[in-house]
Amino acid sequence: MNEIALHLDRNDGQTLTEQLYTFLKTEIMNGNISKNEKVPSKRQLALNLECSINTIQGAYNQLVDEGYLIAKERSGYYVAELDGILNLKKIQRVPNMDTKLTERYRYDFSYHGVDLEHFPFREWRRITRDVINEDDKDLLCVGDPKGFLGLRTSIARYLHHSRGVACSIRQIVVSSGTEFLLQLLIQLFDPSTQYAIENPGYEKLNLLFKSNRVKIKPLPLDDQGLRLEGLEQHLVDVVCITPSHQFPTGCIMPIARRLQLLGWAGGKPGRYIIEDDYDSEFRYSGKPIPSLQGLDQNGRVIYMGAFSKSLSPAFRISYMVLPEHLIDSFDEKLNFFNCPVSIIAQKTLGEFMNKGHFERHLNRMRNLYGQKREALVSAIHEHLPFAQIEGASAGLHLTVRINNGMNENELVAFAEHQQVKVYGLSRYYSNSPHDRNDGRLLLGFATMKIDEINNAVALLKKAWY
Amino acid sequence: MNEIALHLDRNDGQTLTEQLYTFLKTEIMNGNISKNEKVPSKRQLALNLECSINTIQGAYNQLVDEGYLIAKERSGYYVAELDGILNLKKIQRVPNMDTKLTERYRYDFSYHGVDLEHFPFREWRRITRDVINEDDKDLLCVGDPKGFLGLRTSIARYLHHSRGVACSIRQIVVSSGTEFLLQLLIQLFDPSTQYAIENPGYEKLNLLFKSNRVKIKPLPLDDQGLRLEGLEQHLVDVVCITPSHQFPTGCIMPIARRLQLLGWAGGKPGRYIIEDDYDSEFRYSGKPIPSLQGLDQNGRVIYMGAFSKSLSPAFRISYMVLPEHLIDSFDEKLNFFNCPVSIIAQKTLGEFMNKGHFERHLNRMRNLYGQKREALVSAIHEHLPFAQIEGASAGLHLTVRINNGMNENELVAFAEHQQVKVYGLSRYYSNSPHDRNDGRLLLGFATMKIDEINNAVALLKKAWY
Repeated sequence: MNEIALHLDRNDGQTLTEQLYTFLKTEIMNGNISKNEKVPSKRQLALNLECSINTIQGAYNQLVDEGYLIAKERSGYYVAELDGILNLKKIQRVPNMDTKLTERYRYDFSYHGVDLEHFPFREWRRITRDVINEDDKDLLCVGDPKGFLGLRTSIARYLHHSRGVACSIRQIVVSSGTEFLLQLLIQLFDPSTQYAIENPGYEKLNLLFKSNRVKIKPLPLDDQGLRLEGLEQHLVDVVCITPSHQFPTGCIMPIARRLQLLGWAGGKPGRYIIEDDYDSEFRYSGKPIPSLQGLDQNGRVIYMGAFSKSLSPAFRISYMVLPEHLIDSFDEKLNFFNCPVSIIAQKTLGEFMNKGHFERHLNRMRNLYGQKREALVSAIHEHLPFAQIEGASAGLHLTVRINNGMNENELVAFAEHQQVKVYGLSRYYSNSPHDRNDGRLLLGFATMKIDEINNAVALLKKAWY
Repeated sequence: MNEIALHLDRNDGQTLTEQLYTFLKTEIMNGNISKNEKVPSKRQLALNLECSINTIQGAYNQLVDEGYLIAKERSGYYVAELDGILNLKKIQRVPNMDTKLTERYRYDFSYHGVDLEHFPFREWRRITRDVINEDDKDLLCVGDPKGFLGLRTSIARYLHHSRGVACSIRQIVVSSGTEFLLQLLIQLFDPSTQYAIENPGYEKLNLLFKSNRVKIKPLPLDDQGLRLEGLEQHLVDVVCITPSHQFPTGCIMPIARRLQLLGWAGGKPGRYIIEDDYDSEFRYSGKPIPSLQGLDQNGRVIYMGAFSKSLSPAFRISYMVLPEHLIDSFDEKLNFFNCPVSIIAQKTLGEFMNKGHFERHLNRMRNLYGQKREALVSAIHEHLPFAQIEGASAGLHLTVRINNGMNENELVAFAEHQQVKVYGLSRYYSNSPHDRNDGRLLLGFATMKIDEINNAVALLKKAWY
């Protein structure tokens, strides 16, 4: 390679060195100059491009520093071997899972994800822009291990208003997902602790506790939620539950059972209830169900919440509220864990809440999701008359018993024939899933458009009847 | 309360309802309307403000929804009790640790943090703004558990160029800190695994392994880094090291020791080296030290890096490179962990790297930190002639042996008298710290301004001689 097809523009905003640097880098990245190829000597190129040798030297130095060129003594500059890291262009074209799914399915009743059309991008962008502020030294420092004080203040205020959670800011720990919060608790509690989870329940809990090598017991439910007799029987210390909208069945734990549960927890030191209030923002009829935490008089409830359903699971922001008497021990044992959420994200969310955008967004989304749920319920009544909808009018999913004689696998397979993706309930059982194969499905409706829902259910009718 | 001192502005961008809502909310938050106080009736206020009852109704509804007002049937609207969540204004004024530190110290040789004046805020803000894009559905979905593909591509390219790390994108796992990556590995490896760490070493490692209840053995160093005889002697399976710039001593492991270490790892199945390349971006003289990972022929090295030193610890983005043969097992066992870094942050960083900003920032910072280190070294030579500087010309800290007869506590205390904060090396020892109290200090220079460094060291002279 002896010539370079570049015209240096002296009126460009970039210096000549920058222009040459950018040109060569692009050529190398695009594979237009091959590996190990020698590039022109500085003198030759300076002559060629009618600029000073210093200009060339600057660009070559930069490219050497960044690994694009290799300087060989008494020989010149050569293009480095970049093949080892694959052809970058090819990689970026790899289709992701969603694309594949879209090809196979016209409609997907996935439980994961949120409505894709009504996120307040404009406000989020504006606040983020304001937060990324040259004068804010916080943005370059390790923050409080339990999370940014401003965000924790906003969360405390929100929980107080909306969920009846009584807490001080010291009790709040911000993290990036329920799994990370639970890992902190596992390290906080004694290694001999016996944990219990709901069965059926959130599928990750079982995996998480097993992966952390602690004792875990799945306990059965009835139509009021977790049955309590297993707690004493299996010497449970800590139980994880979703009392306000059981996942996945959708039932609400009535006040009597709640009080019994709190009574169990108060019965012995070291007993705790982890209350996962994962979708409490969305309740479409009746009064909001107050949190267990707000009922608790003995500091036995650890409350957990997240912004995954209310904003976006892509934001990775969740939190827990520790009982007062656990704070000192938590701070002492675990304050070496940095808060995993970036300061920019924490400040942005704090501002978003302070300015009222979060409440307004929730109100809009509650209305929208209520309509989506209503559309789904109507469509089921219309097209699937034998199906029974279970659970409360809340959250972003419902469960349904199809009652057409098909088992779960058949229901899923026939729906797939019609390019509709539905989810069997048996995946949420920790053990003996085959006993549970009774034709129940979980249908998430958050990511679907309202006018798609009826069409999707009409296809399910075709599939199943 | 019967009157409201508000003038509704019909030419304002906000609706009348919004104006009233904002006014009342602010009044309540500021404590200008007391809890349980009754606010004017809708009719009365509509008359008063010369607007429709609907305007008032809209604002009151919103305030009730958000918990600021309580509607009592047949009685009216009352301000809710917000005291339970403390006086928000007071909380936000609580001084944070930095403020307190600034008051006690004029200069702080902290190792934590980065230069506070040269972060490319403008580029970061611009890219973030572009990333928060209405049409990008990724922003509302749970992403790949190992991290966003685009960012992993950028990291693979960077590691290849700058650190000689050979890897495919599948091998890269993005997370929010070394501690989270190590926890994944602890869950990946057998529970009986014997871990080893450097002593002295990064103080969090010991805490992390203990908190995860696995077997951990701190091993001594010599002037070439980790001494290897302890690995066989203590039946170590997995060792964490900082070969390119040992933390905190600053020594570089020579090639012979590296090959011996790789030989040890290849000697038995299940042996691994976790290479923490925490500050390799900053080397001020000589060639960059290639990574151990690049030397490894047997897939025995797990490479870890972070953007904490190169960008900001507030961003919470780190990564590891798994050996090929561990990927399947990792994906199978641990893909239920979501990547804790938000998609917005991952996309922003990926773009920042793709556009060359990261390399440019690194080059600028390498130059700046090189000058800061040089200023510190010169000041030590000038003011502390008996002190011995240890370790390589690299990273964002150096260690120094003061040699004035004082022990570490005395050095720290006398420096504090002069309002200079310095850090003893004994805190980085896992055990018997008192034996190590030989007057060695760690001085971080990243957060200090160049022209402060000489003044700070001059004060240390006053303190110690």
